[in-house]
Amino acid sequence: VFDARPLIRAKRDRNPHAPGEIAEFVRAYAAGEVPDYQASAWLMAAFLNGLDAGETRALTLALLESGRRFDWSDLGRPSADKHSTGGVGDKISLILAPLVAECGVLVPMVSGRGLGHTGGTLDKLESIPGFRTRLSPEAMREQLGRLGVVMVGQGPDIAPADGKLYALRDVTSTVEFEPFIVSSIVSKKVAGGAGAVVYDVKTGDGAFLRDPRRAVGLARMLVEATRALGTGAAALVTDMSQPLGEAVGNGLEVRETIDVLEGRGPADVRALTLELAARMLALAGANPDLEVARGRVTGALDSGRARERFTRLVEAQGGDPRTLERGGAGIPGAPHVVPVRAAGAGRLAEVRTFDLGEVVVKLGGGRIAKEDDIDPRVGLRVLRRIGDEVRAGDVLAEVHAASDDPAVAGRVRECFVVRDEAVEPPALVLERVV
Amino acid sequence: VFDARPLIRAKRDRNPHAPGEIAEFVRAYAAGEVPDYQASAWLMAAFLNGLDAGETRALTLALLESGRRFDWSDLGRPSADKHSTGGVGDKISLILAPLVAECGVLVPMVSGRGLGHTGGTLDKLESIPGFRTRLSPEAMREQLGRLGVVMVGQGPDIAPADGKLYALRDVTSTVEFEPFIVSSIVSKKVAGGAGAVVYDVKTGDGAFLRDPRRAVGLARMLVEATRALGTGAAALVTDMSQPLGEAVGNGLEVRETIDVLEGRGPADVRALTLELAARMLALAGANPDLEVARGRVTGALDSGRARERFTRLVEAQGGDPRTLERGGAGIPGAPHVVPVRAAGAGRLAEVRTFDLGEVVVKLGGGRIAKEDDIDPRVGLRVLRRIGDEVRAGDVLAEVHAASDDPAVAGRVRECFVVRDEAVEPPALVLERVV
Repeated sequence: VFDARPLIRAKRDRNPHAPGEIAEFVRAYAAGEVPDYQASAWLMAAFLNGLDAGETRALTLALLESGRRFDWSDLGRPSADKHSTGGVGDKISLILAPLVAECGVLVPMVSGRGLGHTGGTLDKLESIPGFRTRLSPEAMREQLGRLGVVMVGQGPDIAPADGKLYALRDVTSTVEFEPFIVSSIVSKKVAGGAGAVVYDVKTGDGAFLRDPRRAVGLARMLVEATRALGTGAAALVTDMSQPLGEAVGNGLEVRETIDVLEGRGPADVRALTLELAARMLALAGANPDLEVARGRVTGALDSGRARERFTRLVEAQGGDPRTLERGGAGIPGAPHVVPVRAAGAGRLAEVRTFDLGEVVVKLGGGRIAKEDDIDPRVGLRVLRRIGDEVRAGDVLAEVHAASDDPAVAGRVRECFVVRDEAVEPPALVLERVV
Repeated sequence: VFDARPLIRAKRDRNPHAPGEIAEFVRAYAAGEVPDYQASAWLMAAFLNGLDAGETRALTLALLESGRRFDWSDLGRPSADKHSTGGVGDKISLILAPLVAECGVLVPMVSGRGLGHTGGTLDKLESIPGFRTRLSPEAMREQLGRLGVVMVGQGPDIAPADGKLYALRDVTSTVEFEPFIVSSIVSKKVAGGAGAVVYDVKTGDGAFLRDPRRAVGLARMLVEATRALGTGAAALVTDMSQPLGEAVGNGLEVRETIDVLEGRGPADVRALTLELAARMLALAGANPDLEVARGRVTGALDSGRARERFTRLVEAQGGDPRTLERGGAGIPGAPHVVPVRAAGAGRLAEVRTFDLGEVVVKLGGGRIAKEDDIDPRVGLRVLRRIGDEVRAGDVLAEVHAASDDPAVAGRVRECFVVRDEAVEPPALVLERVV
């Protein structure tokens, strides 16, 4: 049986761990030989005293090796995945996955659920009646070969040590630490078996890393840790100082997904989707030239073929494709829709995006605890963007709620800061790590 | 149910705790509302980011209030207790308790077991056949009123939250942190109900605080935290750069106890016992003048009355007083006694006291894990002191062992560093906090 005390003491005293020590600790923890109370003491010691690049690599590898690593190379096509660090209104994956598959690159996408103020891809998909996000490895392989795209949750086979460790981090206030974040993300993404991963690292008020410098640092760490495991990687650092697109909330975001797939929808969602998709094609080797890749993904989106692929994806995973017709009219909607109007005039200077995310959680559209149920109908539509001119009485947003609570509109209004001054709209992509 | 995450996060981020927060955390932890894995994350965060004096006071009070606080004031006599931070060969409590009781001060002594390289008073007492260290509160009160002294272990009534937290610290490498040490010691000592506590803080190679400055800091913290709870306190910082007395090991130390009580025995044991006893008398108010107190305890020791009181104490707690006759000849002895001889000549410059303690543990005289059994027969007799002249072939020590292992003598010999230079014997008392 592994004795964790020397490892805890070493990190407590700022002594480095050898890679083998971390591997053995993770193995023993996953096997139940190290109790949670020792693992959490180590988590806090590492959080406060740091893990260097080598320790982070060793941790990532150990988490990866706690489960299986998928391999789709026998399907004979390049493959790519995308991961976002989480934001408010980020429905990019839903559009991106069928779009990239349409361009000949396999997308074996393993996604997560929402927690706290950010949404999760699985929750969004599950607002489509019937959609299943649990597939056996055999079903994944079959669908990937036939359709080029599969969107599933992290099964028990993928980095199980990370699942156990993440649950412990969540209850011991040791989440917000880059080496843990990197090892957790990268181990799962690499286990998913894509040949290349593009990271979308969010920064700004609605992201968990508000400071752009920390976001750039995280982007670099993600790329480095992924490449160290033999998987291609690139990262974009993108703006989350306001919600992405208009829709925030699971069902509303599926409708916006359909809008964008049908050539409508917000310009920022479309632009970021195309940019990430082009990066995936380039990184996977399908179109090494980024300009060519951009042209190809734009064509696939504008032709309606990506929309078509999305329908087939939904159908393949048990969803009812009829719910996606007429802009997603079959997706359940909320009974109460309340406009939020501007009190004064000026320019929209700031959007308290974190607070908007929290409003959606309180409406029932997100989780405080992992086991919470989600109401797919509720959310917000955010109708003005930073830099826009605003007149008193303009509708800034809509609240989509299950019940009529007049206080919510007031809380949402406070999230929109209008000032009497010129305001520059923020850039969508702040930095590239390629 | 108490949510520990904000408390963990606060300490992680170096934000101070309000006293009520610590009280509530300890209450919830003792009640099982906070799981070990959250408590251990907090322990590590506090270990690394510190607890200030107010937080330490709040923790001490919370641990105290998790159990009962004895009160012996209705017995109508002053009372005092002594606590040593632990060393090698420290049998002072066994001599001190009956001695102080003989001088009219009640000694309700609550002691611990040995762990690691240091011995524990309970283990020493239990090497007397039949001696019981578990007494009900009613039996404690009866014996204290009749005999003036009782020596027991920490029952489930005394600071149970500390017992639970200490066990967790032990397995999470969060033991060696002064605010935890202080709160653990002081809560138990104050719960024992003595009106005054004298602390013997050891420093040097055989102490857990080798650095004398840290020992002085700990002494100050102990005194301050004890006084804050309304109990009188003083502390001596004393030398542990060599074992105290000659005997190390449970049965051997009981024999040395009898030697000192009968006017023989090593000078350092006698001197430190008298000094601590005088401090207890003075602090308890029995003899406010320290010189008068010194004269009184010396008289009680030299008259044989303290020896007599020890016999009655042993008898009262189930021990066989005949085992104490003829220098403790009835205490079980080890079958193998091996002399350790000096290889070269010079002055004894250094004694690796920690290593000697570890040798005794390996002989079976101490514990590595809490549940280990102890062999009362084994140990060492250390016959030379720092500064002594040594000739090649002189017996430096004796190994008392259960089996014949020729390697042990060699290990013990390496603990005695002989150099060809003048060496000053260390002072016994290095600092006083009164």
